[in-house]
Amino acid sequence: MINIQSKDNRIIKEVKKLKNKKYRDKEGLYLVEGPNLIEEALKNGVQIQSLLISPSYKDKDFSYLDNSYLVEDELFKEISDTVNSQGILAIVAKKNFSGELKPKDNILVLDRLQDPGNMGTIIRTADAAGYGLIVSIKGSCDIYSEKVVRSAAGSLFRMPIVEGLSYEELGELVKGKHLVVSDLQASEFYYEANLKEDIALVIGNEGNGISDEIRQMADMRVKLPMIGNIESLNAAVAAGILMYESIRK
Amino acid sequence: MINIQSKDNRIIKEVKKLKNKKYRDKEGLYLVEGPNLIEEALKNGVQIQSLLISPSYKDKDFSYLDNSYLVEDELFKEISDTVNSQGILAIVAKKNFSGELKPKDNILVLDRLQDPGNMGTIIRTADAAGYGLIVSIKGSCDIYSEKVVRSAAGSLFRMPIVEGLSYEELGELVKGKHLVVSDLQASEFYYEANLKEDIALVIGNEGNGISDEIRQMADMRVKLPMIGNIESLNAAVAAGILMYESIRK
Repeated sequence: MINIQSKDNRIIKEVKKLKNKKYRDKEGLYLVEGPNLIEEALKNGVQIQSLLISPSYKDKDFSYLDNSYLVEDELFKEISDTVNSQGILAIVAKKNFSGELKPKDNILVLDRLQDPGNMGTIIRTADAAGYGLIVSIKGSCDIYSEKVVRSAAGSLFRMPIVEGLSYEELGELVKGKHLVVSDLQASEFYYEANLKEDIALVIGNEGNGISDEIRQMADMRVKLPMIGNIESLNAAVAAGILMYESIRK
Repeated sequence: MINIQSKDNRIIKEVKKLKNKKYRDKEGLYLVEGPNLIEEALKNGVQIQSLLISPSYKDKDFSYLDNSYLVEDELFKEISDTVNSQGILAIVAKKNFSGELKPKDNILVLDRLQDPGNMGTIIRTADAAGYGLIVSIKGSCDIYSEKVVRSAAGSLFRMPIVEGLSYEELGELVKGKHLVVSDLQASEFYYEANLKEDIALVIGNEGNGISDEIRQMADMRVKLPMIGNIESLNAAVAAGILMYESIRK
């Protein structure tokens, strides 16, 4: 294993650059921290470009990978994004969406979602609910930021993803599916609608909700009942309740 | 309005102490930041003990309250918990749970939940789903920490709350109700069970799940289906899906 001691090392510099969305977009790479997530990435065929391990790392053995580097503890701390780092970090390649979607698969549309914790949680739920594709609209927070990767808990490695679409491109992509938005003024409750299959479900921005552009395209409007004197649910909770409609028997 | 300029002022010292759970428990007080939350607290009859306003505050007018203090900007920054503080903060009194619960009301039980963001989100969802009471088990994160207050988005002022129960006390409190736990090994899916009313739904610790003590007491076990190769949902999402079962028609 090659030993890295200098912060001017090429790999260290690359890790630092990959904390930036621009560079992630340009290189098609992102960062994954912690043994469990890295193992999950490997299981799902995600390509590990480089694996950085600190001398104090003591967990799952990845020494069979041939692109590993030993990074001094102090230097490792500098590149880690977590407070209690476990001392292992990988540079991995984004998977390209093949463009294939099973005929009736549901699509999740993230319309300028801003909170990375919410976004990761929603991607994790979409995976559990058997959704076929995640789409983010331009202006959403980056799906490949370290916080989204963490809160998606491995689902990012399994779910097909298309990032940064315009509203026009979204219109093309969801053609033939029902575009579903939640709307407090809707006449139909979500459990009265058929959200089982062949839908594109839109989750809106935490502050401003779903954009006018998408509201105009939508052909299904559903509301979530609320008993308390309350205006809205957390975006990840609302998304979870709506997505789980598709796997009720 | 009294002008506060010194960090040795009694009120400033009190705010700082209230960042600590021990002091919140002892005094029965907690902190609420931002005009929207403070307005919500007032609407719901929460007693405002002191209101601290910075000179740069420009939003809703609370000058009719007679216990307001003007706190210099620099000093205000020191006591604020948020990065982009709006310059207003209140010391408010916890509401005591009257002990009255409507006969068939549902109870939400937080079993050593650790993440304050999750906890606040779950309380907000319980409010929307018409739950009648929130109970936290000893060892849960503090319901009145600033982060829980923020993410509960006002629901903390409306929901009856009982904190820090032992498992024995919980057993007493939920007597007569069905104690519901989620369990991957359960034979029944959540949508096959009757979660409409008269249940105490338990949400477990993010890492370790529901405690053995509660598992043994439980008389309803339900599972959430998961399509992806996934072990669990985020605690707030799972809680939302389960709680929303009670308001389906």
